[in-house]
Amino acid sequence: MPSLAELAGRLSEFAAARRWEPFHTPKNLAAALTVEAGELLEIFQWLTPEQAAAVMEDPDSAHRVRDEVADVLAYLVQFCTAVGVDPLTALDEKIDRNELRFPAAPAE
Amino acid sequence: MPSLAELAGRLSEFAAARRWEPFHTPKNLAAALTVEAGELLEIFQWLTPEQAAAVMEDPDSAHRVRDEVADVLAYLVQFCTAVGVDPLTALDEKIDRNELRFPAAPAE
Amino acid sequence: MPSLAELAGRLSEFAAARRWEPFHTPKNLAAALTVEAGELLEIFQWLTPEQAAAVMEDPDSAHRVRDEVADVLAYLVQFCTAVGVDPLTALDEKIDRNELRFPAAPAE
Amino acid sequence: MPSLAELAGRLSEFAAARRWEPFHTPKNLAAALTVEAGELLEIFQWLTPEQAAAVMEDPDSAHRVRDEVADVLAYLVQFCTAVGVDPLTALDEKIDRNELRFPAAPAE
Repeated sequence: MPSLAELAGRLSEFAAARRWEPFHTPKNLAAALTVEAGELLEIFQWLTPEQAAAVMEDPDSAHRVRDEVADVLAYLVQFCTAVGVDPLTALDEKIDRNELRFPAAPAE
Repeated sequence: MPSLAELAGRLSEFAAARRWEPFHTPKNLAAALTVEAGELLEIFQWLTPEQAAAVMEDPDSAHRVRDEVADVLAYLVQFCTAVGVDPLTALDEKIDRNELRFPAAPAE
Repeated sequence: MPSLAELAGRLSEFAAARRWEPFHTPKNLAAALTVEAGELLEIFQWLTPEQAAAVMEDPDSAHRVRDEVADVLAYLVQFCTAVGVDPLTALDEKIDRNELRFPAAPAE
Repeated sequence: MPSLAELAGRLSEFAAARRWEPFHTPKNLAAALTVEAGELLEIFQWLTPEQAAAVMEDPDSAHRVRDEVADVLAYLVQFCTAVGVDPLTALDEKIDRNELRFPAAPAE
C-alpha cells in the first residue's frame, strides 16, 4: 500500500501532466475539499442510523463512499502541498493538544 | 513521523478512552468532516489570491490552517474506521481511474 | 411573485403529500442545506474572477445557478419550519445587531 | 415584518456603507454561504434526534440557530443580488418542476 507522502507525489505529477497547477490555489482547493465533503455527507443525509450502518453492504453505495473518501483525501493532500503543511504532523500534534484539553473518562 | 494507520489507531484509542464511540456514527462523522472543511475554507473566503498565497507567513493564520487540516484529516480517518474503508487504497485506486479518465496534456 | 411565507406553505404541502415529513428533521435538513450550498459553490470552484462574473451569460450554467439557489432556499425554509424560526425576522434582527457591531466607513 | 426584497436592499446598503462590495463576488459569497451552512449543521452534528428536536428549548442554542439561519439567508440573498437571480422566483419554479418529477403518494 502506498504511503500518504507517495500519494501526494502521485497527485502532484498528475496535476502537472495536465497543467492543472494554476487552478490549484489554496483557496480553490479548500473550496473543492468542502464540496467533496458535502458529496460524502449527501450519501447519508436521509438515512436512518440503521441504514447508515449498512451503507457498505450495498456494492453501489460502498463504491460511492470509497470514491468520495478518495476525493476528500485528494483535495486535502493537494491543499497541504500548496500551503506546505505536512498533514500527518499536523494531526499528530493536534492529538497531543487534545489529550491535554479533553482528559480521559475515569475507569468505572 | 507517524503513518496514517498509526494516527488512525491513536484516534480510536482517544475516542474509546473518552467513551465518544456512540457519537462516532458514519453520518455524524461525515457531517463533522463537512463542518471542519468549511472552517478551513472560512480562513480563505474573503482573501485575494495574493493574500491567500501568503497565509502561512503569519504565525496565527498558519497555526489556524494546520489546526483545521488536522481536524479534517481526523474526521476523515475516523469516518474510514467507522465504515471499514482504507483511505490510502481508496485514493490510490481513484488516481488509477482518473489517469484513464483524464489523459495527460501532450508535451508542447 | 409569491412571498417567502407562501413558498414555505407550498414546501410543507409538497412534503406532506409525499410523506417525506419523517425525514425532515432539523439535523437532516441542516445537512441537506450544507450539501446544496456545496453544490452551488462547485459551479464556481475552478473559475477565475472573470469567468465567475460571466456565469449567468451561459444558459446552462445560469440554469444550474438558479436550480442550486432554489435548493438552498428550499432546505433553509424547511429547516426554519421544522424548528419554528421565521427566517425574515431572524435576518432583520441580525442586520440590526451588525449595524451596531460594524460601524459604517466614514464618507471620504 | 420586512419582505425578502426589503432585506436584500438593506443588505446592499449595509455592504456599500462599509465598502465591502469588492469582496462580494459570486464565488466568495458562495463560499461564505457554504461556511455558514456548516456552522448551522455544527449545532446538530453530535445530537441525538431527541436532543435535536429540543434545540429551541434552550435559549442559548435557540439564539445560535436563529443567528446561523440569518447568516445563511444573508449570504444567499447577497449571492442572488450579485448574479441577478430572484430567489423567490427560482424556488417557485423549482417546486413546479419537482411536482412533475416526484408524483405525490396516493391516498391510503
